[in-house]
Amino acid sequence: MPDRKTESDLTRDFDNVWHPCTQHKDYETTKPLLVERAEGIYLFDRQGNRYMDAISSWWVNLMGHNHPRLNASLKNQLEKMAHVMFAGITHQPAIDLASSLVNLSPENLSKVFFSDNGSTSVEVALKMSLQYWQQTGKENKTRFIYLRGGYHGETLGALSVCGMDIFRNKFEKVLANNLEVEGPDCFRCPYGLNRNSCNAECFEPMEKALQENDIAGVIVEPLVQGAAGMKIYPPSYLKKLQSACDSNSVHLIFDEIAVAFGRTGSLFVSEEYKPTFLCLSKGITSGYLPLAATITTDEIYSAFYDDYSRGKFFVHSHSYSANPLACSVANETLTILSENDFMEKLVPKIAKMKQLGQQISDESKWCGEFRQQGMIAALELVKNQESKESFPSESRVGYKVYLEGLKRGVFLRPLGDVIYFIPPLVITEDEITTMMNVAEECIAAVLD
Amino acid sequence: MPDRKTESDLTRDFDNVWHPCTQHKDYETTKPLLVERAEGIYLFDRQGNRYMDAISSWWVNLMGHNHPRLNASLKNQLEKMAHVMFAGITHQPAIDLASSLVNLSPENLSKVFFSDNGSTSVEVALKMSLQYWQQTGKENKTRFIYLRGGYHGETLGALSVCGMDIFRNKFEKVLANNLEVEGPDCFRCPYGLNRNSCNAECFEPMEKALQENDIAGVIVEPLVQGAAGMKIYPPSYLKKLQSACDSNSVHLIFDEIAVAFGRTGSLFVSEEYKPTFLCLSKGITSGYLPLAATITTDEIYSAFYDDYSRGKFFVHSHSYSANPLACSVANETLTILSENDFMEKLVPKIAKMKQLGQQISDESKWCGEFRQQGMIAALELVKNQESKESFPSESRVGYKVYLEGLKRGVFLRPLGDVIYFIPPLVITEDEITTMMNVAEECIAAVLD
Repeated sequence: MPDRKTESDLTRDFDNVWHPCTQHKDYETTKPLLVERAEGIYLFDRQGNRYMDAISSWWVNLMGHNHPRLNASLKNQLEKMAHVMFAGITHQPAIDLASSLVNLSPENLSKVFFSDNGSTSVEVALKMSLQYWQQTGKENKTRFIYLRGGYHGETLGALSVCGMDIFRNKFEKVLANNLEVEGPDCFRCPYGLNRNSCNAECFEPMEKALQENDIAGVIVEPLVQGAAGMKIYPPSYLKKLQSACDSNSVHLIFDEIAVAFGRTGSLFVSEEYKPTFLCLSKGITSGYLPLAATITTDEIYSAFYDDYSRGKFFVHSHSYSANPLACSVANETLTILSENDFMEKLVPKIAKMKQLGQQISDESKWCGEFRQQGMIAALELVKNQESKESFPSESRVGYKVYLEGLKRGVFLRPLGDVIYFIPPLVITEDEITTMMNVAEECIAAVLD
Repeated sequence: MPDRKTESDLTRDFDNVWHPCTQHKDYETTKPLLVERAEGIYLFDRQGNRYMDAISSWWVNLMGHNHPRLNASLKNQLEKMAHVMFAGITHQPAIDLASSLVNLSPENLSKVFFSDNGSTSVEVALKMSLQYWQQTGKENKTRFIYLRGGYHGETLGALSVCGMDIFRNKFEKVLANNLEVEGPDCFRCPYGLNRNSCNAECFEPMEKALQENDIAGVIVEPLVQGAAGMKIYPPSYLKKLQSACDSNSVHLIFDEIAVAFGRTGSLFVSEEYKPTFLCLSKGITSGYLPLAATITTDEIYSAFYDDYSRGKFFVHSHSYSANPLACSVANETLTILSENDFMEKLVPKIAKMKQLGQQISDESKWCGEFRQQGMIAALELVKNQESKESFPSESRVGYKVYLEGLKRGVFLRPLGDVIYFIPPLVITEDEITTMMNVAEECIAAVLD
């Protein structure tokens, strides 16, 4: 039972706060969870009730909440300075972070531009690409290709390369004219193939689109289309894309905002590729503070490097670029990721998720597909396993599963009817078992 | 003389970092300042050299660096949690901040949407405005009016309402089709009037533009156009704008990102107005952490409030929305602003800036205008006082003044040839004297 202060705070929340991606009318029946503190993979309300953060607070948290080393790195930096502007000035936390990112990311990437969130990291990539073509005699290259189902943030530039109607449809009239192509859809593959054995036959529409002569770049979420419902597609698609971008002189933008820093089982998906731009955010501070980075090549950078009077520099800034507190936490995050076989220790966790996911998928008649890429896993619920028919959206199956999860102390937040798991990487195998067993219970409670 | 570590760090900076709004070729002759720590209004390099932060680290810092109370508020929150997602979840730091902002801002504003930086706070206002008109039967209202010289951030949506060529010109082809109007230009008033006695005769083009029937909203930086060179215009313009927006059913967006939280001598310029949207960032955390807020009315909010199935909710999110650490520092900032006659104590400082600015303006033949709005002041340098002719941009007068400032321990960063002062509000009168005397010396060193 909420106490009086909690009641009053929730009333103030309802009166004064407009939450992101939220229909506030839903709060008439289910109030938001008032989280007081967090520890490891758990969130706690004021009554001391515990909720497992199964989606890492919107896919940001890697090391768990209230991590002693991350807290210490933040406090150490705080004693020196919280922030200082980043034009005409530099500082060690940013230099260290940029150097580490350059060392860890694909070899062809060498310059790091900092901003504040995933959307801005994408905006920076799009703008750098556009300005690069302007300054190298290809002024006609002004359009970007993006995939159906792609999501790259919601500022209007990022939204102009979003392939999901729900995010775009109220804003179509003001969005730049980019080019959407059908991307991989492995669960309902129109070619009738399987992602484990196909040759990315679905690359065909992209191949064709790349023939257009006004294409500046292609943007993709490599391997996992997150907001589309953790749709997973094979590396063969990316290999073809890399090759086609190279041969058509088109920039390749990898948006690894959701998948970098260990989520897929490797540090970056792009390790095996040569993107022109790599966009990072979310996990970069292990879910502590807003920070983003756009990493690019010397070739791009060189096109902006000239005498001041030539007006070629990249005119883009955010006041809090390279915030030292955020950079410090990011530096410590990268250190933790590199120590004590951190990445190797994910292997049995990934295996556990696979085993349990497969099991649920076998047991539940509502599970259309279980799919997984490293520490990202998803169960797509369907009305009919045979036909793969979805539930009607008004039945809000995913939302009901979410409410059941809350009752059982697990914070899930399905994407439509896709129940997904992106836990902090520090989750244990036992906790994975609890998380996925609870999800199975919730699905049964709603549908059986 | 820089030590070996500093040399090496600066090399790594040059090799790996792409700084905002910076022509890196300039670093061949003048390296960026490597700031190690900051205290009060001063930045310190590793050698212990001190630089006065005369522009508050891009206009963000209010209370000085390394402020004990702000540090304490951050550490206290850190012990509870650094961050948690803000959909389906809420927390006290955000509820308190939203309530305070609603209490302190104009009476008609009641709902606070959090994001990460000034650009996103503007994107949110633009998108809410567009979606509002879509959902209230005025689908044709899709364009925004902005002022020549206006600056509202650099993501592509924010850039589409930017009235400065230097920010736009490489990206024109992808920007939404908004409507630029001539705004106030008091220093070179085309009507030959004076901002202290005119009746905003320059409102005429805006009046005319507002007749167009597809206008969703008007966006302005109230009283001070910052990036344009701290161009200051009279309240009479805003009064006319408020009235014209009301009578034409057009949303009025006040971008107070740079001017709020005491800069102009009052907490918000909008105190005396009824904007539909108020955009805040920069000073909101006193320069500690990225955070932004877009505040709007119940009328706007109501148009999004409906059964979930109607699909009317505002589909926009950033992972780090309402970051609890940033909200905590913001709450403490607002408390400090409200205590011990903080605002009243600005009065003699504002007077001191006025007295000294006027004096420099009288003494220097290079000063075309001294202008001031509260704690924001600027000297616009000209080649000829009589004709108000500017220096040719290739002579980089402002940049040279910046280099002279560095030699004298004051970090100025002129906008073109406008030498401006936005010091932390805690600056003392003596420090104001130093800051402005040094600026005068620098101007003389470059031009005399």
